[in-house]
Amino acid sequence: MKSPVTQVLKNLHQRYASLHDGKVADYIPELAKVDPKLFGICIATRDGHLYEVGDTRHKFTIQSISKALSYGLALEDRGEDHVTSRIGVEPSGDAFNAISLKPGNGAPFNPMINAGAIATCGQVLKKDGQTRIDRIREYLSRCAIGQLDIDEDVYRSESQTGHRNRAIGWMLRNFDIIEEEPRDILETYFQQCSLRVNCADLAVMAATLANQGCNPVTGERAIAHEYVDNVLGVMASCGMYDWSGEWIYRVGLPAKSGVGGGILAVLPGQLGIGVFSPPLDDQGNSVRGIKVCMDLARELALHMFNPSAVPQPALRRSYNASQVNSRRRLPAPVFKALRSYGDRIRVMELQGPLLFSTFEPVIRELVKQAAYCQHVILNFANVFSVDGVSLRMLREVRQQLDDTGVRLLCCHAGRHGKALEVAGLGEDALFPSEDAALEACEDAVLEKVMPHHTPDVPPVALSKCSLFSTCDEDELQLLEERMEHRSFATGETIIHTGGTADELFVLSDGTVEVRLLLGNNRYQRLDVFSAGMSFGELAFLDGSPRSADVVTTAPVTCRVIRRSLFDVLGREHPALKAKILHQFALLLCERLRQANIEISALRG
Amino acid sequence: MKSPVTQVLKNLHQRYASLHDGKVADYIPELAKVDPKLFGICIATRDGHLYEVGDTRHKFTIQSISKALSYGLALEDRGEDHVTSRIGVEPSGDAFNAISLKPGNGAPFNPMINAGAIATCGQVLKKDGQTRIDRIREYLSRCAIGQLDIDEDVYRSESQTGHRNRAIGWMLRNFDIIEEEPRDILETYFQQCSLRVNCADLAVMAATLANQGCNPVTGERAIAHEYVDNVLGVMASCGMYDWSGEWIYRVGLPAKSGVGGGILAVLPGQLGIGVFSPPLDDQGNSVRGIKVCMDLARELALHMFNPSAVPQPALRRSYNASQVNSRRRLPAPVFKALRSYGDRIRVMELQGPLLFSTFEPVIRELVKQAAYCQHVILNFANVFSVDGVSLRMLREVRQQLDDTGVRLLCCHAGRHGKALEVAGLGEDALFPSEDAALEACEDAVLEKVMPHHTPDVPPVALSKCSLFSTCDEDELQLLEERMEHRSFATGETIIHTGGTADELFVLSDGTVEVRLLLGNNRYQRLDVFSAGMSFGELAFLDGSPRSADVVTTAPVTCRVIRRSLFDVLGREHPALKAKILHQFALLLCERLRQANIEISALRG
Repeated sequence: MKSPVTQVLKNLHQRYASLHDGKVADYIPELAKVDPKLFGICIATRDGHLYEVGDTRHKFTIQSISKALSYGLALEDRGEDHVTSRIGVEPSGDAFNAISLKPGNGAPFNPMINAGAIATCGQVLKKDGQTRIDRIREYLSRCAIGQLDIDEDVYRSESQTGHRNRAIGWMLRNFDIIEEEPRDILETYFQQCSLRVNCADLAVMAATLANQGCNPVTGERAIAHEYVDNVLGVMASCGMYDWSGEWIYRVGLPAKSGVGGGILAVLPGQLGIGVFSPPLDDQGNSVRGIKVCMDLARELALHMFNPSAVPQPALRRSYNASQVNSRRRLPAPVFKALRSYGDRIRVMELQGPLLFSTFEPVIRELVKQAAYCQHVILNFANVFSVDGVSLRMLREVRQQLDDTGVRLLCCHAGRHGKALEVAGLGEDALFPSEDAALEACEDAVLEKVMPHHTPDVPPVALSKCSLFSTCDEDELQLLEERMEHRSFATGETIIHTGGTADELFVLSDGTVEVRLLLGNNRYQRLDVFSAGMSFGELAFLDGSPRSADVVTTAPVTCRVIRRSLFDVLGREHPALKAKILHQFALLLCERLRQANIEISALRG
Repeated sequence: MKSPVTQVLKNLHQRYASLHDGKVADYIPELAKVDPKLFGICIATRDGHLYEVGDTRHKFTIQSISKALSYGLALEDRGEDHVTSRIGVEPSGDAFNAISLKPGNGAPFNPMINAGAIATCGQVLKKDGQTRIDRIREYLSRCAIGQLDIDEDVYRSESQTGHRNRAIGWMLRNFDIIEEEPRDILETYFQQCSLRVNCADLAVMAATLANQGCNPVTGERAIAHEYVDNVLGVMASCGMYDWSGEWIYRVGLPAKSGVGGGILAVLPGQLGIGVFSPPLDDQGNSVRGIKVCMDLARELALHMFNPSAVPQPALRRSYNASQVNSRRRLPAPVFKALRSYGDRIRVMELQGPLLFSTFEPVIRELVKQAAYCQHVILNFANVFSVDGVSLRMLREVRQQLDDTGVRLLCCHAGRHGKALEVAGLGEDALFPSEDAALEACEDAVLEKVMPHHTPDVPPVALSKCSLFSTCDEDELQLLEERMEHRSFATGETIIHTGGTADELFVLSDGTVEVRLLLGNNRYQRLDVFSAGMSFGELAFLDGSPRSADVVTTAPVTCRVIRRSLFDVLGREHPALKAKILHQFALLLCERLRQANIEISALRG
């Protein structure tokens, strides 16, 4: 099966392969040699998948596209204030090679014209024994698929003919925009423009900008998070010279082109596009590149202002403890009480990126819920980013909730845990799982509504075990005699996954956990049983192998019904067996009802 | 409890209330009269919630902010090609009142300068007996909270002093940019600028642009969907005159200001901001307005290129029919077969907005799944928008799936159903619920793997009913004699919600549905039982009232066990009762296991 995305690119490639408008750059002989038929289109997704059609792996020189990225490096080296005091961010309306400096301070209008790009090179530091071009080459390589190298022929030729740029360099020196003689900075600039990339590199660079500065193919951070919007900002307003307004209106993507025939375009937060086709129009932009970007933007609705690209509200679903509970089994009357006060515990599952506009409805809901409940659990399992604004709002809401006596807990924080802790949600508010958070809240609610809810002091008598609660004295006596007693220390495994199920356990004292093994020594807690309850019924009844481990979490004493005893009961004391089975069925009924409520809450 | 969002606005208000820089516009006396202390800030969310601080309900004149919106009306009246051939979209670099027309055709550089705005007024049609200003007033009112009116004093004054604008009008007439004497167009322009709004109106107008052109307070469509990105495009590149590059770099929101002291700023897809404070800077922008927008953008991370605002992938969760099945109960061996071939049916739950970058990973997964399964169900329950690109990709994938023999079904399409039908997913592919879609796929799978899976021709003998499958001849005979037989026509209700549960039913022939009533004659199908199965056990066993209706979906004959009979069996035939209870327990075990698998799949 073919992907329809590849088909879209193939159609575009076919549509414009026969377009022969434009002229290959010829201001230096090395560029003029390129085959004008070369033509590649590549889309890189935010998770690093590449769709490629045509000559996407042919190497060519990056030229002006480098200006956008080295601007990022300059910002990282010197900070925004320093850089913007020397290089503006306003479109100049002039051609790319104009010596257009602001009247007041001689600052180039923006970093996308040659004057601004040369000044930008001057802002890049020599550092750790590395030259400027070493650092620029590494920086750009981190944004690409692999290491980039310099086309020495192109570089030599650029340097030999770069007189106009030398004039610009000296003007910048004159205004103290650069603080040394311009020679090294200019050579850096010529080398930077001569770096060799392919069309797929361009798409990955664009996707790196779309992906918060993280290269989606290598997974490495390439551009500091805080400067991504600066780079995209100048690309949006100045990336296409005096055609920038038209470009934003018609294509709607921050972009940068180079006279090597490349265009890089970014849909922020979503994807990157690279196009390569050497013939250029009068403004020095790839003719086919422009066409492809305009058509792609329209056909795939890739527009910054695309009104469909709306982030989803962060509230995935919401339920209370009358619908969903912790895995710990409680004695029936206690459980009933918990359910009837379950609306005091509210679980809110979050999702997606947490940023102001997605998280604000959650905050609104929290403010509302504060009047109704006493515990709020935020589940972060489906959250994939938390920005500083959300953290701050969360901290503020939490302080207010504290003041009104509502407790805020977070679970499944995972990689967001550190950020939550910094936001003041310390150890007491962070729980590894929703299960653990629910249990803590249930304890607090039960403490209030049923302060003495541990009715039976262990060891629990057989008559108090729900399975045998309808048995008479004689029957209890008989069972007591025939059942085996066993004791276990904390941490012992009573039931092993895969084992034969010929025993049923009734807890007299202690607690056990049913654990589903997940591999790597990890497990999921499925159930917790305490004194008076039974465990191991399902496999005991239907004879299937054990589906989970049962491990003691406190010293345990229990009674054991072996299958042979159960069979004997059936023959010799059928009425007793019927009583037990009836209790069994009631127990299963109760669990099934609870499971159905949970399924319905989870389905939303 | 106070919302931390309101607190952010209060802090900002406090921070800048004492800032007395700037001067109230005084080119006409009516504007000079305004109190410079007036100061309001409002945020409108995409769901129409307003956060307001200060003088957000004080009326003032809209002035240049009207330019952005009437540009939308001109586009709706004449289409993009017509309008852009007469009014450019490139920043001019000049001040707002410059007579800057392009050398070639005399077209104003963009619709945000006066020349462009007057030309835009000229593009608005008189229609259905309505004047231009009638239509502009209605259009802007649809974007606001309520009906807007004209400040007649301001209008008169603007008209009396608008000589420079009259000169511009005649220049536009000279170049045939407007096709009639400019008098009416100029008066329209003066009236448009004199429309009275308040700060909350501005926020709602901005939120309307953020919300795909739909007013989030009234819920009405205000701006045609397809022109929202055009309006935002010119605001982004030209909205703040010769400070547009700086604005996009520092604030990162398409915006428009007016000399009345208002600023409107849009975070596309997310929210709208309105600020009102009359004192202006040299460029004619509200001093406090600019400060508030810059701080808000930084403090709430509201930036178009904010790298956190990443739309979540559209695949919410995915499971197969070994984990989740239709509500129809199947005989145990049939069910077992279904589960073991369950990977032939794949359910993919979708979420959020479907657009290229969120839907592409779904397409990629579909292409992959095509090799493994035979039925794919897409659940649209959590999808809140589907764009044309997603529809097209879906249609193409579906055609390819068809060719490879994989069936694509959609469920819970709701309001997206029409769009899916247009995309070629007709009646045969659209199902009202996941349950119904699953059942159809299960039938198809069973047809292949168990072509004769209806083993027992009804009426099913008692010995073939799972509850009694371990009973011997004598026991069956006894039961047969004591159980009552009943018949029902199609559509009859056998069990009523809330009724007393003193009967248990065993189906000899026909099918019944268990229905959870949702009100308004709607219901959710919980279970479907067919011949040989029993129903009504849960309430029968634990004595609780009936929790759902049971309705026949075919003519039914069934056997009934009354509670009195069950009690008698306990006393007189305990071994028989134990056998039945054992089967009961097994049945419940099976359902509980299935529910647990489903919960685990839903938790993902």
